[in-house]
Amino acid sequence: MSVLNEILEANKGYAKEFGDKANLAIPPARRFAILTCMDARLDPAKYAGLSEGDAHVIRNAGGRASDDAIRSLVISYKLLGTKEWFVIHHTNCGMEFFSNDLMSNLLASSLETAELGAAGFKDVGQGPGSNEGKYINWLTIPDQASSVLEDVTRIKSHALVPASIPVYGYIYDVSTGSLIEVPEATKVGQAR
Amino acid sequence: MSVLNEILEANKGYAKEFGDKANLAIPPARRFAILTCMDARLDPAKYAGLSEGDAHVIRNAGGRASDDAIRSLVISYKLLGTKEWFVIHHTNCGMEFFSNDLMSNLLASSLETAELGAAGFKDVGQGPGSNEGKYINWLTIPDQASSVLEDVTRIKSHALVPASIPVYGYIYDVSTGSLIEVPEATKVGQAR
Repeated sequence: MSVLNEILEANKGYAKEFGDKANLAIPPARRFAILTCMDARLDPAKYAGLSEGDAHVIRNAGGRASDDAIRSLVISYKLLGTKEWFVIHHTNCGMEFFSNDLMSNLLASSLETAELGAAGFKDVGQGPGSNEGKYINWLTIPDQASSVLEDVTRIKSHALVPASIPVYGYIYDVSTGSLIEVPEATKVGQAR
Repeated sequence: MSVLNEILEANKGYAKEFGDKANLAIPPARRFAILTCMDARLDPAKYAGLSEGDAHVIRNAGGRASDDAIRSLVISYKLLGTKEWFVIHHTNCGMEFFSNDLMSNLLASSLETAELGAAGFKDVGQGPGSNEGKYINWLTIPDQASSVLEDVTRIKSHALVPASIPVYGYIYDVSTGSLIEVPEATKVGQAR
């Protein structure tokens, strides 16, 4: 079965058991938002105990506080009333394994998927590639405690973020499923 | 109990039953990515039938193909091998209920949460606000079929996206839990 058909089949089952979820309100019932990584191994609803209707979940490569994540967070509190936020990066993140230069070189070489070997990512595709990758900041992560601290700091110091919103910094451990605090980040992120 | 403690408590339970999820690989096992909205009522793992390790999930306000979503999608295929993508917006999205001008005016008036009345969002907070909101494109959604089509079109025509990746366009119905195809988008999004 194709991925598309698998998804549609799974969705039919979900819709059949949908029940009273039709009555959920737009504003998150538990009034918080999580910013985390797109990584396939992470299921924020499961690792943080969310039901439908509870919280906003924002995800991108790395769980970074990009301009777009800030756009989403500002909409989250200003229009939909969230009152606290969580930045959750994770161990063994793909964003640790490359640099801006490597990524733009790989894309300049070809648009096909690179191979990950002992020496790192290597392009094995057929060209043409594109130089457009040189104009993107890939927001790679040298180490998670630093990236969580940087992102909580960026959010807290943004002109559109009220000082009253606490931002908590955590790392999700993909080998145990546990959330581990980054105390320096939570300290920077406390409500004032 | 505070939200933070509730999350940590739920996480303890998840970690206790973590089992063999520690062995999941970084590349998504089912080789696809979903771009969808941060809305609290949406649980993509549930509505599309995903287990941990299956697929990348990218979420922002609206599920829009922002530059940051494109950054994430390019990392998803180039380094981690996804081969097909889904853009899934939804009915009754908060992004339908305001405009760029309204949002920047609300933020200029105060940073507190606005009130939603019969006449739309209204600022009831105490100033000061900030003019920084005028420099952000909020990527609002006038109607979902158009926004899905726009976003699939933007992704398919991006210089870093290989023509071989099909992009499917769907709307999630928050009143039934069902995925509804946007045929024009899927047509634009087919692999070439």
